[in-house]
Amino acid sequence: MADVPQLVAQAREGRPRAVARLISLVEGASPQLREVMAALAPLTGGAYVVGLTGSPGVGKSTSTSALVTAYRRAGRRVGVLAVDPSSPFSGGALLGDRVRMSEHASDPGVYIRSMATRGHLGGLAWAAPQAIRVLDAAGCEVILVETVGVGQSEVEIAAQADTSVVLLAPGMGDGIQAAKAGILEIGDVYVVNKADRDGADATARELNHMLGLGEARAPGDWRPPIVRTVASRGEGTDEVVEALEKHRAWMEESGALQRRRVRRAAGEVETIAVTALRERIGDLHGDRRLDELARRIVAGELDPYRAADELVAGLTES
Amino acid sequence: MADVPQLVAQAREGRPRAVARLISLVEGASPQLREVMAALAPLTGGAYVVGLTGSPGVGKSTSTSALVTAYRRAGRRVGVLAVDPSSPFSGGALLGDRVRMSEHASDPGVYIRSMATRGHLGGLAWAAPQAIRVLDAAGCEVILVETVGVGQSEVEIAAQADTSVVLLAPGMGDGIQAAKAGILEIGDVYVVNKADRDGADATARELNHMLGLGEARAPGDWRPPIVRTVASRGEGTDEVVEALEKHRAWMEESGALQRRRVRRAAGEVETIAVTALRERIGDLHGDRRLDELARRIVAGELDPYRAADELVAGLTES
Repeated sequence: MADVPQLVAQAREGRPRAVARLISLVEGASPQLREVMAALAPLTGGAYVVGLTGSPGVGKSTSTSALVTAYRRAGRRVGVLAVDPSSPFSGGALLGDRVRMSEHASDPGVYIRSMATRGHLGGLAWAAPQAIRVLDAAGCEVILVETVGVGQSEVEIAAQADTSVVLLAPGMGDGIQAAKAGILEIGDVYVVNKADRDGADATARELNHMLGLGEARAPGDWRPPIVRTVASRGEGTDEVVEALEKHRAWMEESGALQRRRVRRAAGEVETIAVTALRERIGDLHGDRRLDELARRIVAGELDPYRAADELVAGLTES
Repeated sequence: MADVPQLVAQAREGRPRAVARLISLVEGASPQLREVMAALAPLTGGAYVVGLTGSPGVGKSTSTSALVTAYRRAGRRVGVLAVDPSSPFSGGALLGDRVRMSEHASDPGVYIRSMATRGHLGGLAWAAPQAIRVLDAAGCEVILVETVGVGQSEVEIAAQADTSVVLLAPGMGDGIQAAKAGILEIGDVYVVNKADRDGADATARELNHMLGLGEARAPGDWRPPIVRTVASRGEGTDEVVEALEKHRAWMEESGALQRRRVRRAAGEVETIAVTALRERIGDLHGDRRLDELARRIVAGELDPYRAADELVAGLTES
């Protein structure tokens, strides 16, 4: 058994191995998961969570890396959570990208963590918020969550960020792809990466049109900006950071940040509660209690609704 | 509000309108559903439930009608539950079939009830057992449940019968279709209908092969028979009834009937319990309690697991 209080203390001191161990404990749904979460709770809330999503090939990990560089230059501690199977952070990319990332890997002010999307069917939406909590408690001021915008659960994770960045690239009918994947609605900031390529203007125009950015909005509403970048050369990264800071300020002043975080926490509690209840009911398969209730139904002594009541009542006592 | 005790008393006396009213109450998940189920429980367990399933066009409703005739000749009270959208019982067939059925519709010893498969996504597996209970309590000795073997929930309903009949017809690659639909595993009795047509022998042989009926079985195991019928002329119906009676006797003597019914009741309780819990959690969306828990998480006063515990505990108190 891990010494949770010690691990938490070490993570607070900035020891990467303690951070990694804690994430493993929450990710693997270890028996100590609850102990870890209880220990972390009072240490959370300081981090600002930025989600980055987009189709494969738009340059998500290059953009993430450029943002890490920018934040580090400003002296901020950064966490990266990569739930994109094609991300070099999660180990699926070319050597060139990997080398570019390794610069951050040796920086003590950066924590990088990948999460497997495969074999975790539906479990990702549950595990990602817990990993974010660990990075938050470990003192990360900004947490970048990189997801590929193709799966529903990944879109959900991106939508749960304090600020969501949607990335596109010229050509490839990206606008339409993004619309199909449902990621067009979730952007607080849009980035057209690879803006030195042909078609960048057309992509930005198409995006502007699809988002209805030319239309009038109520005063005080957030109008998502479209930023052009060439992330591989670091061009436009400062403008992205500026857009993120503006959105953060708007979120804080308007009260939207608190509302979004409360909604996110409520969804998380709901997911955990439903999962727990389903597991408990699943555990009852072949259980004597359910079997006994079923026997009484077959004998005509009980109806299935009253039996279900007894089952549900028993669940919270066990 | 319906007078449930009176309706139940009238249903016991054989009044079809009372039976119809009770089924409507349970099918529509009325507020009186629980009262109805509690009143019915002590009156159930007397009926034997036979499921009939097969691809469209194999002659399920004609076979069902022929079985009704045979059981009525033997003086048995019969209930028919049609969850097949193409069945004349559920109102989707040709006039000829409809006329053939109307004979039974005027017989006071036969209750016919159709259930809509559309608009009840996933709700059928839940509603069918309740309707079966009403027919059971109303004094039906045999209940025929007709489902088209294409949807998963319909296959589940058929598999929950005391005896499952799988129907096929010559040609159309029925054996393979049946295998794909997953209905080959659930048959206790197989019927090759339209046996006067070319290919009936081939279909029976193919079926025999796919079921491995030529292989050795443990003594005491049930070996599903293959019966040939021409249901439109009533040919082979007596043999089907005989096969059903044999299977029933085997089910009772081997203890398999009790086991199957207990398993069915357990599944039913589980479905009702999960549905109830999900609804209660869904009701909490925007609820002050969940909102309050979420606020405390955001403030770092509580972790999501403890919050989920509180939510679950609250569910059974409410």
